[in-house]
Amino acid sequence: MRAVDVIRRKRDGGALSPEEIHAFVAGATDGSWADYQCAALLMAILLKGMSLDEAAALTDAMVHSGVRVDLGRRAGGTVPVDKHSTGGVGDKTSLILAPLAAACGAIVPMMSGRGLGHTGGTLDKLESIPGFRTRLSLDEMRRALDRRGCALIGQTAEIAPADKRLYSLRDVTSTVESIPLICASILSKKIAEGIGALVMDVKVGRGAFMKTDADARELATWLVGIAEKNGVRTEAMLTSMDTPLGRAVGNANEVIESIETLKGHGPKDLEDLSVRLAARMLVLAGLTPDDAEAERRVRAVLTSGAGVEAFRGIIEEQGGDPRVIDDYSLLPSAASRVDVVASRSGYLAGFDAELVGRGAVVLGAGRERVDSVIDPGVGIDIRMAVGAGVRAGDVLMTVSYNDHARCDQARQMLEESIQLVEAPPVAVPVIREVIGGRR
Amino acid sequence: MRAVDVIRRKRDGGALSPEEIHAFVAGATDGSWADYQCAALLMAILLKGMSLDEAAALTDAMVHSGVRVDLGRRAGGTVPVDKHSTGGVGDKTSLILAPLAAACGAIVPMMSGRGLGHTGGTLDKLESIPGFRTRLSLDEMRRALDRRGCALIGQTAEIAPADKRLYSLRDVTSTVESIPLICASILSKKIAEGIGALVMDVKVGRGAFMKTDADARELATWLVGIAEKNGVRTEAMLTSMDTPLGRAVGNANEVIESIETLKGHGPKDLEDLSVRLAARMLVLAGLTPDDAEAERRVRAVLTSGAGVEAFRGIIEEQGGDPRVIDDYSLLPSAASRVDVVASRSGYLAGFDAELVGRGAVVLGAGRERVDSVIDPGVGIDIRMAVGAGVRAGDVLMTVSYNDHARCDQARQMLEESIQLVEAPPVAVPVIREVIGGRR
Repeated sequence: MRAVDVIRRKRDGGALSPEEIHAFVAGATDGSWADYQCAALLMAILLKGMSLDEAAALTDAMVHSGVRVDLGRRAGGTVPVDKHSTGGVGDKTSLILAPLAAACGAIVPMMSGRGLGHTGGTLDKLESIPGFRTRLSLDEMRRALDRRGCALIGQTAEIAPADKRLYSLRDVTSTVESIPLICASILSKKIAEGIGALVMDVKVGRGAFMKTDADARELATWLVGIAEKNGVRTEAMLTSMDTPLGRAVGNANEVIESIETLKGHGPKDLEDLSVRLAARMLVLAGLTPDDAEAERRVRAVLTSGAGVEAFRGIIEEQGGDPRVIDDYSLLPSAASRVDVVASRSGYLAGFDAELVGRGAVVLGAGRERVDSVIDPGVGIDIRMAVGAGVRAGDVLMTVSYNDHARCDQARQMLEESIQLVEAPPVAVPVIREVIGGRR
Repeated sequence: MRAVDVIRRKRDGGALSPEEIHAFVAGATDGSWADYQCAALLMAILLKGMSLDEAAALTDAMVHSGVRVDLGRRAGGTVPVDKHSTGGVGDKTSLILAPLAAACGAIVPMMSGRGLGHTGGTLDKLESIPGFRTRLSLDEMRRALDRRGCALIGQTAEIAPADKRLYSLRDVTSTVESIPLICASILSKKIAEGIGALVMDVKVGRGAFMKTDADARELATWLVGIAEKNGVRTEAMLTSMDTPLGRAVGNANEVIESIETLKGHGPKDLEDLSVRLAARMLVLAGLTPDDAEAERRVRAVLTSGAGVEAFRGIIEEQGGDPRVIDDYSLLPSAASRVDVVASRSGYLAGFDAELVGRGAVVLGAGRERVDSVIDPGVGIDIRMAVGAGVRAGDVLMTVSYNDHARCDQARQMLEESIQLVEAPPVAVPVIREVIGGRR
């Protein structure tokens, strides 16, 4: 099978056979397809599209470009389960729901990413815990799952190596924005880690990559369809990302907020979404048949402290200092703080999540360039609940920073992000819509 | 200007600015655009198209990726002129019209190509003349033009280097079949060689790359439009390529047929087309105001022998043995010959030009692979005029070959190429249509 023939078929709007798709992915992995041939096909896929069957075959081929971990099934037909978010601002649900689900008996092999653009990354947050190792080998991951029911790790070289090559090519050839390619990239890594069920948190709104419900719904529908065709029970929730989730945006401060939430002191929006996602993980994993029972179980481990203890165990397992659970001063912090205040009175409708996220990146909490180094102690803490009445001069946010010039630049963005309205805003639910997954 | 932004604009269906197009071509030439970025943009151009202005800017950028030879203008506003064919079978008009036009006072800097697919190449034919050098430096080209009014050469490294890189990329990424890319590739080399006028012979039919009049007309319209925007007076003729042009298909035998035609003994279809193309070259170059006068001048140098003497001078200038004009035995020839005869009686409607061309390639007159070596002595000579009445057993073609197995394979194709009909076929003019160029 010649690369030029496969490229030509897609170029001319044809459907690629599973064999052609496997030849492409194998060629991308072993280098027998040149970069320029991969790039030409990626552009043709972006412009001519793929059917659901083609996208499912692409995902399968990318899974099989490396190791597909076999974690097996447990008695009663329960399966390993993961959650994946398409990326938001202040989105630290992984740090909360993974311990909660594990405390409820789920097996959670969670492979996460780093911050991308204005959105934060689970790995960056976890690495603000002194000693915490996200680069586990597959053997270490298996041991963590056996001992703790959860492993919070980064992509390893064995997992979907085709994705690594194709993703870096897409980034430099303007072929990122293709739904089949996005889905195959996300799902191949998830499927390869050995899951049998997946809850997708598809963010939608100002601070998300998908700005409209229609776009988010389309992506969610593809994700569910492709994952199901690859044998993974999958559900996608469309959740609001107009204003940051919770109160903390950064790294160490998001770890603190996660621990506080596991201790029962978290902000309601964050707690509710984390519990809901964890509950759906239990249902899809086959641990409990219905939502109400699942949510009761999750809330029980939250209340009992079993959830926060599960997180302590995970930190210990992965080389981190478990004392951070009780002593936040062990986490990195910034040298200076400054408040952002309201310039006038009104009601707080929220904060433009993209501007807050960009402000956090400017502070050093994210990467402005691929090789930027994260400053784990800097960040933004929101001090006022959405919906509250505000007077001029009230403190709305506190900025933790290490560099004056960066702080000034970030503050401008943060001041601009403030959304004050004349009348009390109507509260909107975080979960907008659910696609797939009912069983 | 970032490559990803330029790629994204074309991907999204936008028009590229001349600056963006120049950045792409300069990046392709100096390597600051990676191959995969060039490939992604080429695919986006193929699928999203280009406007005439974009294609003209692309051509201009490719011209300026290397040297644009300045041959100047002569007194009376005459300009250097060239002819280009899109490729056919038995198409040796360049070898005839270049000496004819030069003998009429035109300056003909002709940069030609090699055989491609089933079509022959002017360089391959010329190189069957012992000693003939097609790789002249630009200085040698200028001297040949000064002394002989004509230079018959191959592409040099200084001329449109971007085309070399992009063409080889297109070949391996299925991005050949794009009219703007095809036109920019053809015209950039022609414009860079220093012409002010161009006659395009756009072949159409079974033995051409364009199989239908509509496709050929579209290509011709783009070629004329782009060349005119680049300041070159251009005309395109759509000419039939259903049956081979003239009687000889090969290399040395096509040189012989060209010399015979210059001596006034050529087949009518070949002589008429060569004269017509040469006459249009004179008109576009500004040497003569009207077609009738131009054709009289061309026929005069044909009749007087000035044309064949011009060819002798060109051969001498470029290191070839000029005695071939009088002694065809100095040209390479094949060891064996065999006739192809009619299997039944009828009228000869023609020969499927693509099959004849493929038969010639099989014999060794063309390249089956990029690195194949041409066998200059092999070829096919048609022995019966189109339209003639034929009886079973009449000799229709003679095959000159050096390898029995290849000959057997070629003969099958040649026998299949024979088109016999019951009634005398209606003669169709070789020139089907003329686009642009009136002045």
